Amino acid sequence: MANSIYRASILQSYSQLLFQPCLSNKHCVPKKTNLLCFASSQLNPARSEVSFCIGTHLIPHPNKVERGGEDAFFVSNFKGGVIAVADGVSGWAEQNVDPSLFSKEIMANASSLVGNLEVNYDPQILIRKAHAATCSKGSATAIVAMLERNGTMKVASVGDCGLRVIRKGQIIFSTTPQEHYFDCPYQLSSELVGQTYLDAVVSSVELVEGDTIVMGSDGLFDNVFDGEIVSTLAAHSDVVEAAKALAKLASNHSLDSRFDSPYTIEARSKGLDVPFWKKILGMKLTGGKLDDITVIVGQVVSSAASPQPT
Amino acid sequence: MANSIYRASILQSYSQLLFQPCLSNKHCVPKKTNLLCFASSQLNPARSEVSFCIGTHLIPHPNKVERGGEDAFFVSNFKGGVIAVADGVSGWAEQNVDPSLFSKEIMANASSLVGNLEVNYDPQILIRKAHAATCSKGSATAIVAMLERNGTMKVASVGDCGLRVIRKGQIIFSTTPQEHYFDCPYQLSSELVGQTYLDAVVSSVELVEGDTIVMGSDGLFDNVFDGEIVSTLAAHSDVVEAAKALAKLASNHSLDSRFDSPYTIEARSKGLDVPFWKKILGMKLTGGKLDDITVIVGQVVSSAASPQPT
Repeated sequence: MANSIYRASILQSYSQLLFQPCLSNKHCVPKKTNLLCFASSQLNPARSEVSFCIGTHLIPHPNKVERGGEDAFFVSNFKGGVIAVADGVSGWAEQNVDPSLFSKEIMANASSLVGNLEVNYDPQILIRKAHAATCSKGSATAIVAMLERNGTMKVASVGDCGLRVIRKGQIIFSTTPQEHYFDCPYQLSSELVGQTYLDAVVSSVELVEGDTIVMGSDGLFDNVFDGEIVSTLAAHSDVVEAAKALAKLASNHSLDSRFDSPYTIEARSKGLDVPFWKKILGMKLTGGKLDDITVIVGQVVSSAASPQPT
Repeated sequence: MANSIYRASILQSYSQLLFQPCLSNKHCVPKKTNLLCFASSQLNPARSEVSFCIGTHLIPHPNKVERGGEDAFFVSNFKGGVIAVADGVSGWAEQNVDPSLFSKEIMANASSLVGNLEVNYDPQILIRKAHAATCSKGSATAIVAMLERNGTMKVASVGDCGLRVIRKGQIIFSTTPQEHYFDCPYQLSSELVGQTYLDAVVSSVELVEGDTIVMGSDGLFDNVFDGEIVSTLAAHSDVVEAAKALAKLASNHSLDSRFDSPYTIEARSKGLDVPFWKKILGMKLTGGKLDDITVIVGQVVSSAASPQPT
């Protein structure tokens, strides 16, 4: 089930093209590795500038493996590094619309707009322009994070994709999901009723060398607790291995009907539970959430120290 | 038990001095009201600029009422508004040091430095300079938030004071506590072994008119769940009433030995619980956390619309 596929393009105009662009439904296998260390040769190594070293892993929903699932993401080496995830809203399948088309197209558009002057390295404007350029029918949640070389990471998010920053074994920054009601997240849509960049939560956090970030679709955060993210990162110093381990942990939990997941805890808190006669028998709603799972792990490294991809 | 006392000064040099400065151990009662609406008359009302409308409430630890507790806070009307909370670390009492002195002094210093040119309206630098100017023995956790008139709120935090942003009935931004181990937060200290401004988590979030922020000491967040904060705000549109209601809710929970509080849930997750023989009987560690409780509620209002304090 596990794979390391890439569903969206790295902007080709930048110096370190690591993948073939992928705008179709096919899997795009990285040319050599899915370890991306962004460095800029024009930086003065004496200055403390930073960039991301990134590993990724995507595990599609077990019933959607053939299409590669409905999540999409991209990474770019522009400036300190740009990462983004979109999660196609699966309800569109009921209207015979492939939910993966919208998420893939919006990520492809975003990847090609990263260096656009009007975007001005602002994740909210990137969402606006990528959304405006997307023609597919459907909708998706989306999150974009852009790292400045001085360590400022700007984040814009619409819906329930998420991001955590881990420093010295503790989560020091978290995004918070937005939803209309349980299991109905805010979403960028082809329809007028959906949300727009104006609904994005826009925040930023000052990162320092050694910080680790974890970005993911709700398939990660609905199945894995924050404490598990921290302990998994502690056990895997390599970003590729960490992303893989987190995605596998999420997948295992999603398939475990007895696991008391963040998703079922949230469901119970909203009044959803097993029928009353099961409650009397001491039973409760448990289990993970079957979903596409996308994980991006980024380590903040000194630009001077980060190796050039080969 | 409830009161609306103020423990630190509003910078006197700004136009809207609402309180007498309080650099001593005495209570400072607001001259007229604890509703603070910051507006700037020199603003062009045609521009969409924002400021805070603030209500506050502090309930000291039941055993520390005489001294007024060990929390301290200040609010300032500089630019869009500045709010800050410090929580004196109670362990100092074992060394015959009054834990409230450090928190009060650092907040008094911070309030007098808000407009300092070198601070440059940066909460992390404010913490650095306020800490450097503090002579009292002791230590404290601290959080500072500074609102720009364009809606950007910058936050710097050392330890486990906290902040939430609520938009349309949902929490969209949260700070995350830092601790060395359970119940031992990161803290600014008179001793070299403590943390400094360099250990602060520095973040920012773009606020819009209608957003509500809740800042507090851990006495709030250890006793009140995020969902309760949202529902309490929904029931109290007035910021003073909201701050009072949240502080009272925290106080009630802190005194309830059967309440399964955020604090005891965290304690159990760290392996702390009742003895095994009580566990066998189906019992578990419950109860709130007795503590000083400080709550600051801020509503983001259009600067043009916010009434001038009288």
